[in-house]
Amino acid sequence: MADSRFFDRVGPFSLEELAHLSGAGIAPGSSPNVKLADVATLETAGPQDVVFLIERKLKDALASSKAGACILSPQLSGLAPSGMAVLIHPDPKRAFALISQAFYPQAAPRPGIAASAVVDPTARIGAGSCIEAGVVIGPHAVLGERVHVGPNAVLGRGVTVGDDSRIGPLVSLQCCDIGKRVLLHPGVAIGQDGYGFAASRDGHHVKLPQMGRVLISDDVEIGANTTIDRGASGDTVIGPHTKIDNLVQIGHNVRTGLGCGITAQVGISGSTTIGDLSLLYGQVGVADHSRIGSGVTILARSGVQGFVPDGATYMGYPAVEMREYLRLHKFLLRESRRSAANKKSTDGE
Amino acid sequence: MADSRFFDRVGPFSLEELAHLSGAGIAPGSSPNVKLADVATLETAGPQDVVFLIERKLKDALASSKAGACILSPQLSGLAPSGMAVLIHPDPKRAFALISQAFYPQAAPRPGIAASAVVDPTARIGAGSCIEAGVVIGPHAVLGERVHVGPNAVLGRGVTVGDDSRIGPLVSLQCCDIGKRVLLHPGVAIGQDGYGFAASRDGHHVKLPQMGRVLISDDVEIGANTTIDRGASGDTVIGPHTKIDNLVQIGHNVRTGLGCGITAQVGISGSTTIGDLSLLYGQVGVADHSRIGSGVTILARSGVQGFVPDGATYMGYPAVEMREYLRLHKFLLRESRRSAANKKSTDGE
Amino acid sequence: MADSRFFDRVGPFSLEELAHLSGAGIAPGSSPNVKLADVATLETAGPQDVVFLIERKLKDALASSKAGACILSPQLSGLAPSGMAVLIHPDPKRAFALISQAFYPQAAPRPGIAASAVVDPTARIGAGSCIEAGVVIGPHAVLGERVHVGPNAVLGRGVTVGDDSRIGPLVSLQCCDIGKRVLLHPGVAIGQDGYGFAASRDGHHVKLPQMGRVLISDDVEIGANTTIDRGASGDTVIGPHTKIDNLVQIGHNVRTGLGCGITAQVGISGSTTIGDLSLLYGQVGVADHSRIGSGVTILARSGVQGFVPDGATYMGYPAVEMREYLRLHKFLLRESRRSAANKKSTDGE
Repeated sequence: MADSRFFDRVGPFSLEELAHLSGAGIAPGSSPNVKLADVATLETAGPQDVVFLIERKLKDALASSKAGACILSPQLSGLAPSGMAVLIHPDPKRAFALISQAFYPQAAPRPGIAASAVVDPTARIGAGSCIEAGVVIGPHAVLGERVHVGPNAVLGRGVTVGDDSRIGPLVSLQCCDIGKRVLLHPGVAIGQDGYGFAASRDGHHVKLPQMGRVLISDDVEIGANTTIDRGASGDTVIGPHTKIDNLVQIGHNVRTGLGCGITAQVGISGSTTIGDLSLLYGQVGVADHSRIGSGVTILARSGVQGFVPDGATYMGYPAVEMREYLRLHKFLLRESRRSAANKKSTDGE
Repeated sequence: MADSRFFDRVGPFSLEELAHLSGAGIAPGSSPNVKLADVATLETAGPQDVVFLIERKLKDALASSKAGACILSPQLSGLAPSGMAVLIHPDPKRAFALISQAFYPQAAPRPGIAASAVVDPTARIGAGSCIEAGVVIGPHAVLGERVHVGPNAVLGRGVTVGDDSRIGPLVSLQCCDIGKRVLLHPGVAIGQDGYGFAASRDGHHVKLPQMGRVLISDDVEIGANTTIDRGASGDTVIGPHTKIDNLVQIGHNVRTGLGCGITAQVGISGSTTIGDLSLLYGQVGVADHSRIGSGVTILARSGVQGFVPDGATYMGYPAVEMREYLRLHKFLLRESRRSAANKKSTDGE
Repeated sequence: MADSRFFDRVGPFSLEELAHLSGAGIAPGSSPNVKLADVATLETAGPQDVVFLIERKLKDALASSKAGACILSPQLSGLAPSGMAVLIHPDPKRAFALISQAFYPQAAPRPGIAASAVVDPTARIGAGSCIEAGVVIGPHAVLGERVHVGPNAVLGRGVTVGDDSRIGPLVSLQCCDIGKRVLLHPGVAIGQDGYGFAASRDGHHVKLPQMGRVLISDDVEIGANTTIDRGASGDTVIGPHTKIDNLVQIGHNVRTGLGCGITAQVGISGSTTIGDLSLLYGQVGVADHSRIGSGVTILARSGVQGFVPDGATYMGYPAVEMREYLRLHKFLLRESRRSAANKKSTDGE
């Protein structure tokens, strides 16, 4: 149960209501009228809580759970203990996410501009938007409706933010257009200069002015203290529904497609493109001008350079097909052990 | 000697006072009444400065040092040149740290709330606390006594901070409880959403609301721009006396034990647990749901997944016992050199 | 063409003016009087735009470009299509950078102190400086002339900033001296405590007060959310013209030389020194007390420990000469494939 100091819960909802809002079916024998009051985990749930299960290996935890209702796939729907209501959905995690959102809806911002905010008179703020204390908004910025800007965020000249977006505290925005329903966590820095210099042998490198923008598409989420540089010329583009974790670095003129997932501490160098639905796991590095296809998975800590075809799973540094990397790693372990054993046996003679 | 623009020194102290406050003994022949005015390094010290030495190989530097007093272990106490006062302590670095704290004590905050701070009327601020300019504190936040909140920090609804904690400038706190004597450096972001989505094949991933908290135990220190996500359900917990460096990422529901050390740019993925007194060196990555024991050392840049037993030292990616990694690395170097030499000799025939 | 919401362009300039300000020559047959209005890329340029080319392999793109003028090296000056004006410079990228700066000059700050800024009465602000909204400047800070401090930045007690430096929004400065013409991007944190403790077996580590400073030399640029710790005793020093990218961590007492390049997410541990003109690519890690020479290149994601001689190119972890690393990698790929093939053939018998 979420701490009420931090979270406001609504409800309860009937099983029927939850089925409706999540697109789940009600299993035979489950009463549509049973009332549910919260979401929980298998271990912590009580009779008014909804849980979900996607891994058959956790069936014992389900059997002993005191949850009032469980969301299961058709294949696993028989695992629920008797007396537990069952919702059936092909993707129980998705249904659980939707039901969680119903119990803990995103509060609409309280419209208004805090007294200590400094908003340039030429900026336009849409209806229903909330500008918190200490925010600074530059000339000609344009914010849509129901935008929430957290305390002490700084929005530079000309920046735009689409409807229903939430800009966290201490975020910095320059030279960028932010889409609708975007969520930026604290400390995100978007639109500053990329790293661009004409190197000089005497060390007096000449700065290459960075004259592009950052375009953040609709429904993007960006994690705390992540940095996204604007294009050197042309734009840095984050595709719709792309989800970016904390402390990620995205260089100038990078372009990601639809629905990519980029987890913590990944670094993507300048002018790299990434197709749709690709996943980059933690601490991956991508060299500049790389071309990563769609549906690609790059496993954690890999270093990618160049071209990665659609659908591939890459690993290692330089990253290669996962299968090749694992073969390589196994070979190395086996041979080094054999060599050590031989040496021991030779030494022993 | 520290720059007086930035640091306030007190003292001088007699050798006896320093011995007393650090728990050190005074070596035979050293006068308890000699006055010391500062701490220094072997090279920069003058006759009023205290130094320490723990490495025998630096004995020449000690011999030529002009320091007024040196802290040494019993084993090395004979290395001090004649005329230099000697304090004896089994852990000279610890004694030096305590003596340094005596010369440069943490100033108590100057109580008061800056005119430009925005503190919700329902928030409670303990006696002796200092809220600097531009700070924003949300409803129902509770700060203890002698808390210092640096300029432009943002504390969300319901957040608590224990006595004597120091929150740096530009820190963001949400959905968290901060213990006593905690030190948060600039730009730390605690309690924002973790990375949690129900992935969808059409790219329209559904956000999984993050309904947990972050619990920061007493005596924790957290470095600049580090990010700690709140639990998805349940809590992210940083154990007492754990020290975290800059730009570290800690995912939802991670738990660390007592007195861990987590150095710069480490990333710890969701639901991982770490025992007591474990050390993770720079840029280490830990996969989600890993189980790292107590007294573990993970060497720099390693990638850890799964289980690491108590007391182990791991290295590489995937991380293995250090001994195995080094054997592997040596084998590889030797064989590749042999292969290159063979090739050369074959080519030459 | 840069988005006028974000960028102010000046000009046009004649070819002669551009030649003069960039040090380029005008090719025979190009009219010094042709007017140019902007910079662009080969693909996007129109007849009033200046482009540059340094790679012969892009000659077709140049041939079909509609640019009004192109900067070329003497070797490639014949590649321009007829009708395109040509500027000749041994380093076309440098000339292009200078010409870009001419079209998009850095605006002088608008002098003044915002009403919501909080500047200690003992701080001194030089003529022509601009202190934006929400900035907090501590006692005895000294800012030079024409300094720009972005919104909500926090400058601690005694900090100095040299003439013509630009401090981005949400930057935190403590215990540091910032040189002239320095550019700090949003969220940079300079001068906080380094990671220094006397470790204790009971986990009650004792903090070692960090009594040094950070010295940022002239003409340094530092990327968003980068962190630079002050010296433990003595100083952390960033040499002149060194360029640091986003999310870099620099530990206490690190020293870099002249004109180094340190790209995104690099971590440099305490007391390491780096000579002049060395390059550290993305996500490199350097162990403490390392000694990196001048003219060194450390390739992306490498882990460096110890000594790297002048002029070397290192790679891998532990980093070795690039040639050795690549030999090693090739050997490993070949042998593991051979082993797999053998196994297959044996299995098949």
